[in-house]
Amino acid sequence: MKFFEDFHSGDVFELGQVTVTADEIKSFASQFDPQPFHVDEAAAEASPFGGLVASGLHTASLFMRRYVAVILADASGGGSPGIDRIRFLKPVRPGDLLSARLTVLSTRPLMGRPDFGLVEPECELLDSKSEPVLSMTIHSIFKRKQSAHQEA
Amino acid sequence: MKFFEDFHSGDVFELGQVTVTADEIKSFASQFDPQPFHVDEAAAEASPFGGLVASGLHTASLFMRRYVAVILADASGGGSPGIDRIRFLKPVRPGDLLSARLTVLSTRPLMGRPDFGLVEPECELLDSKSEPVLSMTIHSIFKRKQSAHQEA
Repeated sequence: MKFFEDFHSGDVFELGQVTVTADEIKSFASQFDPQPFHVDEAAAEASPFGGLVASGLHTASLFMRRYVAVILADASGGGSPGIDRIRFLKPVRPGDLLSARLTVLSTRPLMGRPDFGLVEPECELLDSKSEPVLSMTIHSIFKRKQSAHQEA
Repeated sequence: MKFFEDFHSGDVFELGQVTVTADEIKSFASQFDPQPFHVDEAAAEASPFGGLVASGLHTASLFMRRYVAVILADASGGGSPGIDRIRFLKPVRPGDLLSARLTVLSTRPLMGRPDFGLVEPECELLDSKSEPVLSMTIHSIFKRKQSAHQEA
């Protein structure tokens, strides 16, 4: 079980791989982001992307899946106040195999909630050339170990 | 058809309403963010949220649905380099009726792409008390009218 104290500036967590099919791209986009290059293969071919690409929020959600699977599912998570600096760096296409990586940028106690601390990570999805296709900072709150011990 | 020149600092666009069911919350979260308070009603009741709440990326995606429906579907959109300052301000629960609103913060030509301009909006989902549950800035690129005329 991961606590605030388990994260240190510079720590790198490899979160495993994720991929996405054309059907998944179209299904997500038809619900949330039905722009032609996300939902229609022919229109996507004619677009500047030259083919179907995933919605940016879909790509961000693919990272989230790995973050939950490897860290948040087994952590004293206290939620997230928000996300900053989401950058869509390269298009994500059907069949792309993406690696999720989290690098801790900084950590600090939360002033208003003494039992919790804030972790600021650089969250990245990397393609097969190890080039980032997406980066973002998901502000992440974790419980402090000391408080857990006090409660026990 | 909307062009870069159709957006001015201070402009407000009402983007209509959106709601979400418990099944939709659980379906999104089971794919992308399977934390207990997003996928399991009993676990959510026992959590600090006191009941099922939508994943933050799901809530952001609900805004995107309205942005596409009212603006991007009929615009000379040139994509988005990213999103900043996503803030999850209040939990979103099943049945909440949310209003989407976009306020233009600033606009500027894009140095490297003279046919395009960048619009920086404050994007908000408001609850029935008109209080924001989510805010973010989706950096948005639109084609300039002049370039469209030159091409015509």
